[in-house]
Order: sequence, then C-alpha cells, then structure tokens
Amino acid sequence: MKGPARLIGVGTGPGDPELLTLKALHALERADVVAHFCKAGRQSNARRAAAIHLAPNTPELSLAYPVTTEIPRHDPAYVRAIDHFYDESAKRIAEHLDAGACVVVLSEGDPFFYGSYMHLHVRLSPRYPTQVIPGVNSPAGCWSEAGLPLMQGDDVLSIVPGTLPESELVARLRRPDALVILKLGRQLPKVRRALEQSGRLSEAVFVERGTSTQSRCLPVAELGDDAAAYFSLILVPTWTPLAPRTTEGP
Amino acid sequence: MKGPARLIGVGTGPGDPELLTLKALHALERADVVAHFCKAGRQSNARRAAAIHLAPNTPELSLAYPVTTEIPRHDPAYVRAIDHFYDESAKRIAEHLDAGACVVVLSEGDPFFYGSYMHLHVRLSPRYPTQVIPGVNSPAGCWSEAGLPLMQGDDVLSIVPGTLPESELVARLRRPDALVILKLGRQLPKVRRALEQSGRLSEAVFVERGTSTQSRCLPVAELGDDAAAYFSLILVPTWTPLAPRTTEGP
Repeated sequence: MKGPARLIGVGTGPGDPELLTLKALHALERADVVAHFCKAGRQSNARRAAAIHLAPNTPELSLAYPVTTEIPRHDPAYVRAIDHFYDESAKRIAEHLDAGACVVVLSEGDPFFYGSYMHLHVRLSPRYPTQVIPGVNSPAGCWSEAGLPLMQGDDVLSIVPGTLPESELVARLRRPDALVILKLGRQLPKVRRALEQSGRLSEAVFVERGTSTQSRCLPVAELGDDAAAYFSLILVPTWTPLAPRTTEGP
Repeated sequence: MKGPARLIGVGTGPGDPELLTLKALHALERADVVAHFCKAGRQSNARRAAAIHLAPNTPELSLAYPVTTEIPRHDPAYVRAIDHFYDESAKRIAEHLDAGACVVVLSEGDPFFYGSYMHLHVRLSPRYPTQVIPGVNSPAGCWSEAGLPLMQGDDVLSIVPGTLPESELVARLRRPDALVILKLGRQLPKVRRALEQSGRLSEAVFVERGTSTQSRCLPVAELGDDAAAYFSLILVPTWTPLAPRTTEGP
C-alpha cells in the first residue's frame, strides 16, 4: 500500500485528458485501487479521460450500473435497485479501505456535479478519511469549446436536467436566465419543443462530446429531430456585450 | 516569440495552485505575455493561483479596473467607464497580438464563469485566433472543500449573484432548487435575511477562500452579521440520500 487508507473522489474533467488537474494526477499516483462507474458493457467516460495518466497494472474496480433505462426512474423498483447498487459498491470499496488502501473513484467532470460518486461519499465519508478533488465540469468544457459566454454580472445561470417535464422546462426558459440543459439523451425532441415555445430556440447551441477530438457545436435549430444526443448538452445564453460598439480593424 | 499570434483565456481554478489543469500549464509555457485583471492596488487572484507555474521573466500585463464600488453598478457612468476600460484593455492586448505574440489571459476559476475575460473575448476573438481553456470554478472548489453534494438526478442547480434584490433572492430560494450564491461582498446581511425568509437558513453553508490554505466552512446561521465575505460563497443544498439506511460499522 502507498499510504494510509483514504477515499478520494477525483474529477477527471469533461473529456480531454489534458483537462485533468495536477491534484487529480497526484491522486492517481497515490492510488492503490482505481474505481469507476460505467454502464454495463461500456467503458467509463471518466476512465477514458484518465487512461493515459494511470500507472500500468493499477488494480481497477468497475462499478457497472444494474439498471439504466429499463425501468422508469421514478418507479420504486428503480429507486430500490439503484440504492442497493450504491450500498453494494460502497461495501466493495470499504473492503479495500479496511485493508489500508488508498481508493480513488474517478468521476467524469466534477465529482459533486450530478456525479454518482456522491452516493459513495455519503455512505463512506462518515467512516473513512475522505477527500474530494474538484474537476472541470461539462458546461465549462462545452461553452469554452463553443467560444460562447453565457452570463455576466447579475445574470443567474441555471443548470437544468432535460428530464424535467416539458411545462417545467418552458417555465424555466421563460425567465431571463442563462441555462445549460443537461441529460438530453432521448429528451431532445421535448427540449426542442420547450425552446420553441419559450422563444429561445434561435439562441440555443448544441454541443456534442465537448473538448473531445470528436466534438461538434451547432445551433439547436439546425439539428434534425432524429438527432442522437450522447455526451451532449444545450447552452442558452443571456449575455450581450455591455454597449454597442463599432467594429475596428486590427 | 514562441509561436503564432494567439489569444488564450486560461482558467486558473478556484485558488489552490494544484487545481490548474495540464492544458493551462502548457498554455503558460507557450505564453509570450501573461495578462490578468486586478483591483487597483491588489494582486490578481488568478495570478496568485498561477504564480508558481509562471516561467521567470515572462512579461506581464496588469489590467487594473478603473472603478469597483465607487459608482453604483447600474449608473450609466459606471457602464461607460467599465466599457471603455474593456475597450482599452483589448487594444493593449491587440498590440501584442499584432506583434505576433501568444497572449495568455489568466482568469480565476473558469474564464466564462462570470469572468472579465469574456469582455476581451467578444472584442478580440473575431479578429485573432483564440482558445478558451476551461477551469475548475469556485462552486466546485467550495462544495468539494465542504464535502457537501448539493444536487442529483432531476434537481436544478441555480447560480445566483448575491447582488440581486432581496425579493428576487427570496423568490428563487423558495423554489426547490439547489443554489450557489456568489458575489457576497457587502450583500451578506441581505442574503442572510433572504435565507431566513425562505426557510432555508438552516441548510445554508458559508465557504470562505475555498481550496486555499486559509479556507473555512461554517453554517450561515453561525455567521455574525458583521462577517466579512471576501472570496466566499454560500451553498444551499437540496440533496438527500435516496432512501433511509441503517448505519453500519466498518
């Protein structure tokens, strides 16, 4: 073992392996075990971003979600299944901590920015020394990639899951806030209708796989209705420059 | 000159110099000139976080705000003064770009997360090759430091400047969203009243100088009314674990 038993939640940033922090790299160097969540049969995004920084032969613990879209998310059966999964994952990690290991849990983006790591954190941090290393989140990765500032000064920025009901999305889009709409997946047609109803479709920008080598940005208005929306989000800016200016030559 | 003329907005993270990304470090290595915003007579926070990573003798350009709190922010005189300042700052940077320099502008946190860099970006990116390197923002730094996850699943996260009117703060706090309240400064007594009126005072956590060596976290309810609020923010969580669980021994 490389040091005292410790749980470390590490944000691996939005995708580009260069967007890991120095602190994240140092935690990877100290790790006895590296854990990551993934969908069954798929590689973890967080692991993909961290892969080039992992020491060869570091033991890994893959935590594969038991359910993703097979059961509706508000069904009590889903809640029970996912809660049981987090309990079991925490137990698997606790076995390593009890053996004196430093366990790093990789989290895409930032560990507490809608990350599954938080469910391990609340179960384990009361019992073990724990550290959370923040990361660059996906909205920052995407608005940097798009070159699109969303808000300034007194503007409110709301981070809104696309899984909300359409009427709720419309109500939030009608406020004069900047928005980032996450968790698009199969929600894209609904989100697009909400943007149209609220009059904000023309401002909205879709960013797919932001900061990765396959990234693309385009206006939501130009997306086909059958567009897939993997690893993507929508930016709805409220920002305009302070005052009109004449364009100057260099 | 080290490379082709280029403007790079670089997020330096929330304070801890270890929270710079690898990409930010590589940009600093390429820089012919490093620019940063600051209040007159004070050191730039972004520069402080980046200081140990700067090559000795890198030329620096300090952009000191002409007005901070002397003129009310909604006064047309303030808007004119600050707009003129951004125009002049952009001109100073353009002179270096015209000479073929790679100019890095340091931004505390993330360049587009309420950062002044965006005002240079909108003025210069139409004319020069430009890149934005995202950084870890202050909310992520602070909730990681506090070990406090704020939201999950379908929860909305709103980033709210403390400079909003009290009634507006109360209205936003009455919604079932997670909130981060920024820009506290002299707004703290008002923000505290809004937390009380909305019934969320007991959940709210104050984080000062998050991720720095002088950081502290405490409940807002325990803050004195005369508390200063430099480099601080307030976290208002909405999150609870999925289901009640019995605590287990290790």
